[in-house]
Amino acid sequence: MSKRTKEILSWYAGDSPGCLTNLARMLNHGTLRGTGKMVILPVDQGFEHGPGRSFAMNPPAYSPHYHFELAVESGCNAYAAPLGFLEAGAADFAGEVPLILKLNNHDVLADEKDPYQAVTGSAKDALRLGCVGVGYTIYPGSTHRLKMYQTLSEISAEAKALGLAVIVWSYPRGSSLTKEAETAIDVTAYAAHIAAQLGAHIVKVKLPTAHLAQDAARKVYEKSGVPVANLADRVRHVVQSTFDGRRIVIFSGGAREEDKVVFDEVRAIRDGGGFGSIIGRNSFQRPRAESLEFLKTIMNLYAGKLK
Amino acid sequence: MSKRTKEILSWYAGDSPGCLTNLARMLNHGTLRGTGKMVILPVDQGFEHGPGRSFAMNPPAYSPHYHFELAVESGCNAYAAPLGFLEAGAADFAGEVPLILKLNNHDVLADEKDPYQAVTGSAKDALRLGCVGVGYTIYPGSTHRLKMYQTLSEISAEAKALGLAVIVWSYPRGSSLTKEAETAIDVTAYAAHIAAQLGAHIVKVKLPTAHLAQDAARKVYEKSGVPVANLADRVRHVVQSTFDGRRIVIFSGGAREEDKVVFDEVRAIRDGGGFGSIIGRNSFQRPRAESLEFLKTIMNLYAGKLK
Amino acid sequence: MSKRTKEILSWYAGDSPGCLTNLARMLNHGTLRGTGKMVILPVDQGFEHGPGRSFAMNPPAYSPHYHFELAVESGCNAYAAPLGFLEAGAADFAGEVPLILKLNNHDVLADEKDPYQAVTGSAKDALRLGCVGVGYTIYPGSTHRLKMYQTLSEISAEAKALGLAVIVWSYPRGSSLTKEAETAIDVTAYAAHIAAQLGAHIVKVKLPTAHLAQDAARKVYEKSGVPVANLADRVRHVVQSTFDGRRIVIFSGGAREEDKVVFDEVRAIRDGGGFGSIIGRNSFQRPRAESLEFLKTIMNLYAGKLK
Amino acid sequence: MSKRTKEILSWYAGDSPGCLTNLARMLNHGTLRGTGKMVILPVDQGFEHGPGRSFAMNPPAYSPHYHFELAVESGCNAYAAPLGFLEAGAADFAGEVPLILKLNNHDVLADEKDPYQAVTGSAKDALRLGCVGVGYTIYPGSTHRLKMYQTLSEISAEAKALGLAVIVWSYPRGSSLTKEAETAIDVTAYAAHIAAQLGAHIVKVKLPTAHLAQDAARKVYEKSGVPVANLADRVRHVVQSTFDGRRIVIFSGGAREEDKVVFDEVRAIRDGGGFGSIIGRNSFQRPRAESLEFLKTIMNLYAGKLK
Amino acid sequence: MSKRTKEILSWYAGDSPGCLTNLARMLNHGTLRGTGKMVILPVDQGFEHGPGRSFAMNPPAYSPHYHFELAVESGCNAYAAPLGFLEAGAADFAGEVPLILKLNNHDVLADEKDPYQAVTGSAKDALRLGCVGVGYTIYPGSTHRLKMYQTLSEISAEAKALGLAVIVWSYPRGSSLTKEAETAIDVTAYAAHIAAQLGAHIVKVKLPTAHLAQDAARKVYEKSGVPVANLADRVRHVVQSTFDGRRIVIFSGGAREEDKVVFDEVRAIRDGGGFGSIIGRNSFQRPRAESLEFLKTIMNLYAGKLK
Repeated sequence: MSKRTKEILSWYAGDSPGCLTNLARMLNHGTLRGTGKMVILPVDQGFEHGPGRSFAMNPPAYSPHYHFELAVESGCNAYAAPLGFLEAGAADFAGEVPLILKLNNHDVLADEKDPYQAVTGSAKDALRLGCVGVGYTIYPGSTHRLKMYQTLSEISAEAKALGLAVIVWSYPRGSSLTKEAETAIDVTAYAAHIAAQLGAHIVKVKLPTAHLAQDAARKVYEKSGVPVANLADRVRHVVQSTFDGRRIVIFSGGAREEDKVVFDEVRAIRDGGGFGSIIGRNSFQRPRAESLEFLKTIMNLYAGKLK
Repeated sequence: MSKRTKEILSWYAGDSPGCLTNLARMLNHGTLRGTGKMVILPVDQGFEHGPGRSFAMNPPAYSPHYHFELAVESGCNAYAAPLGFLEAGAADFAGEVPLILKLNNHDVLADEKDPYQAVTGSAKDALRLGCVGVGYTIYPGSTHRLKMYQTLSEISAEAKALGLAVIVWSYPRGSSLTKEAETAIDVTAYAAHIAAQLGAHIVKVKLPTAHLAQDAARKVYEKSGVPVANLADRVRHVVQSTFDGRRIVIFSGGAREEDKVVFDEVRAIRDGGGFGSIIGRNSFQRPRAESLEFLKTIMNLYAGKLK
Repeated sequence: MSKRTKEILSWYAGDSPGCLTNLARMLNHGTLRGTGKMVILPVDQGFEHGPGRSFAMNPPAYSPHYHFELAVESGCNAYAAPLGFLEAGAADFAGEVPLILKLNNHDVLADEKDPYQAVTGSAKDALRLGCVGVGYTIYPGSTHRLKMYQTLSEISAEAKALGLAVIVWSYPRGSSLTKEAETAIDVTAYAAHIAAQLGAHIVKVKLPTAHLAQDAARKVYEKSGVPVANLADRVRHVVQSTFDGRRIVIFSGGAREEDKVVFDEVRAIRDGGGFGSIIGRNSFQRPRAESLEFLKTIMNLYAGKLK
Repeated sequence: MSKRTKEILSWYAGDSPGCLTNLARMLNHGTLRGTGKMVILPVDQGFEHGPGRSFAMNPPAYSPHYHFELAVESGCNAYAAPLGFLEAGAADFAGEVPLILKLNNHDVLADEKDPYQAVTGSAKDALRLGCVGVGYTIYPGSTHRLKMYQTLSEISAEAKALGLAVIVWSYPRGSSLTKEAETAIDVTAYAAHIAAQLGAHIVKVKLPTAHLAQDAARKVYEKSGVPVANLADRVRHVVQSTFDGRRIVIFSGGAREEDKVVFDEVRAIRDGGGFGSIIGRNSFQRPRAESLEFLKTIMNLYAGKLK
Repeated sequence: MSKRTKEILSWYAGDSPGCLTNLARMLNHGTLRGTGKMVILPVDQGFEHGPGRSFAMNPPAYSPHYHFELAVESGCNAYAAPLGFLEAGAADFAGEVPLILKLNNHDVLADEKDPYQAVTGSAKDALRLGCVGVGYTIYPGSTHRLKMYQTLSEISAEAKALGLAVIVWSYPRGSSLTKEAETAIDVTAYAAHIAAQLGAHIVKVKLPTAHLAQDAARKVYEKSGVPVANLADRVRHVVQSTFDGRRIVIFSGGAREEDKVVFDEVRAIRDGGGFGSIIGRNSFQRPRAESLEFLKTIMNLYAGKLK
């Protein structure tokens, strides 16, 4: 066990050895094992956006096995997916990569101003499937957010009692937030903080912009001179906002982008003290060989093998 | 055990020895132990207002350990926080300061006329974390208040059966109250009374103004000549309204203010027979050394060492 | 045990000996013991109307102990209050007066056309506090009434399984009733009947006026010549409507009134075959000595010592 | 929190913050607070041996309050007793001394070759009474021992889930052990080890003699040259046998003895690295003033203030 | 994932992915990862035989941390121990070696002709401690065996529902078996088969002798010409008897022996198609450096690096 992994686990001293073990399983797996950095492959886009929109550009990705293989071969720290995708491969790939069962999901077949998600699995399902943890999305900003927080608390209490790690996707969204506000630095930091207060072991947010959305926050940021001009600084602020770096915070990429953009983002996450990336569409929406190369570059960046 | 502590505990003769013990743990801890006065450090502002707005002016306060240390070093009677903040320090600071798990929370990422809070923990969590009690907020005046009262009753029944103390934050708020009414003396007294009727061992309200918001109440107050002109009188009326002083009532300060203002408020609380303060932002939104000095002055005021 | 008490208990032969015992404890306690008449002291006005409005005219009444003492000294058959007030005195006055835990409550900090109440305690709480029974309010006429009936049924089933008496406050109120309708004789009789059908051992309603609010009812009342012109007749009709007198029905007074008015009402209740009064504000909103005198007169009226 | 207390708590990193907090409450209470040493007052002799035999030589000790007072005044780290004794004083002395509810008991009204104990309380009772932990006796050597181990495991799991400390009295006894074997060094070390393997946070055994009772053990002890000639060495071996000193082991005195003998035993416990004493009969079977002096000497020995 | 690991997992297709994952975690860990062979370190001798007898010849082994370190450094596939030993290190060594919680235990402080074990933990404890599986001992031949089978079935059902691996120690013993019969080839094969029939994922038995203990069996063995003359043949017969090799069977060594003897046994296990060894006393009852060398040799033998 590397010194860095030990240090990270020390932040979770209030948790059971079971939770620590499952956190260690992720930190110690794959290419980045022992570095304290993580790259997680999440594949819930089929549910979230529809299969054609998600996989037509790389048809092998329609298969649930494809993503297990991609996660294993690329050396990701973990693979996260909804119940169905995991049920369709967990036995076949047992023990090959740490799994995270995404416990709530929604789709785009109806359009809501204030989004919500259906709970589609349980901590017991996660154990049955051999997962190291459970994932749950909250939408700070939605009028349903309080209900989501409460459900997360209940699920998290059960998961922790069973020794599972709890990973929270915190995505500001809802009728009281403008599109711009959803990724504003103050709102992103707030969303990460809420997830940590709800007991998340690992928090996942989107990379923030320099926008400051809330008036009351903007005043304080400006007065206190919180640096938010460049991305690394913003990452640093999000990490700071998540218990001063005592919780693992990772960042998502969003839609397919130019590789150069993604690599620069990874550099900013690394330089700002972020703990890693959760990269779905940029990984699996291209041919496998290209994906592996792409993920290798990212892991090299995190490992400090590339600048 | 001081005579005063014994006297206070005698008011709770209907409660189990477990509840009495946890009340005693708070009354007997820290600088004010044995005086019957309390200063509690609450840190839920990261959740309630956002991390930047709460901590940017004193960046060490981003760390969950900072607040444990502040509560211990300043000699506060207890430290209250949401699940995440307590999980991130309860093992490291086990036994150093009585802890209160704040069981419901909300944020300001959506704006509701009638506020509500998510339940984010349980009495069992409080025991797991070594807490002496649980905290719960109600919003008398919100259209959701009856649901909040009912949930509090359920949580409180469980907490009491497990020997925990129950601390209720009672904040009038909602579409049927004007901004002015939220802190009106009649409404504040009413809010404190409701919390006590719901079984709170300790009631926390905001310092009231001399405003009388409810017509039916105003008539009685004026006819009966209830003195509400100065703050100490208003504190006295709130204490009286909370079972004639047979329940512990403490007062919160609100946003960062001039120290002189806070000290004068503390004098009024003390002179009006209030039991103490719950002081968050005024404590941790300044450098640590200054905080300790600030809290020391407040405790000296309560202890009667300063006039 | 008086013959009259035996007779009353005989109406509840379908209930468990535990329920009978608790009914007998009330019927056999205090000044009116054995007469089959009851005077109950209810003190939930602090919750319902606010503490200042309820107690400022007689400040000793802010204390929870005051009401225990008043109930004991005046020789009331029982004392009914919310959780907090009972918890604050049940140990100190254990065994001195039968207690009823009022299990639901609301406040006037928000204004609803269709009122509802929060459940604020449980049958288990009642046992823990040594109560003989539980009290529950329903609002026939509110859009929430069916939910209230259902909750009462559940609570009542639990209470009866534990041998507790069930007392139902039945107050017609809500958007579909005019102010006048709330106390109309047809509506009052209907409300009492519903409470009895829901399994109440003791039903509490307001004294009805001669108004007939419901068209369909009015036709029948007029055709059948139901006498409703004077109060004793109306009381008789309510008693008749509550299982032909085979359930205990008691009447409440409402706001502070001239003593003479109250005494005349008591005479009407007595002469109409009612079982007694539940008298809150008229009791405790005056100096203690005066209260005791006032209640003594009422009990003398019920006992037939005064005409 | 002293460095030594922190060090001791670090051995229990697998436990919840709640368990750590309750261990800290004992380690930080009384005369020996912060030293890592403990003196616990246990009073179950009334149950175990009969009241006359236990208290007739010091009649004030018939009162349950006497023992609370003795524990408080002498500055013991904790007071342990069966349900009845704690129920008779826990409210009166709430918060004055950490309490341990002894969860099983037996008497001498029947004589068994293979002793067993009745479970006489629960972890929930301990919480209701404000205890920091639960106590449980096992009799390694009794034919009932496996059943006792199993029951302890169940009770311990519940207690730990509720954040309570678990203290195990491990007393070798039963038809397969001679009287001499009951306190043999090999058997005592074995008994302490079993208690620790069953999950005890604190283990209590009797001071061992130099006797080696089990043939298979004697051979190893002699071959390995385990020093058992003097008492301090034997204490050291017991501590070593209890997870190499990573679990708190305390020693009991047994029947009233000459003070000099007890003091010498305390010196041996201290010098052998033992964590303290649990002293019942030697404490309360003498006049209070003498007891206090006696316990003061013991605590001074542990604190190193006396040689 | 090696082809051999995949092949082994394919035998457990009826199990959940969670169970497969935990089997894979053992098969893929340590020096022998991927070979399909296992060496497990079990340390329950302190409980089973007493601490002095177990650890006095290598005093560092009194510490629970010693065994975690030994298992990690030697590259064992897993470490198995009772609750106390795991609780004392599971947080400190989280994620460093697969853990097996031994769920039942007994001691030698009483001598029974028909042995039994106490259940000393649960599947939930195993999850809390981050274990991959639970261990349970049965004593075929004891009059208590049917009760042990039944308890195992219940525990196993719970463990499997939670995704844990089930490892069964099957030790023929009891009043109906002679000492010689306990390790007879027919009895050992029978014991292994029973464990597999009870649902064990991994079966552990002692190395069998050529003795045939049961008349009815002897006749068939002789008639069918089952080869049992040399140890490798006997291992092959046990493996065959355990579902024709479709369940993992490992063998235990017993008391400290000459290294050469152990190595020859390992060769026989390997050559007979056994899956590995569970080696306690031979590992930890010698200096650490010597242990590591000893275990390295064994692993080299299993890996085919040594003949």
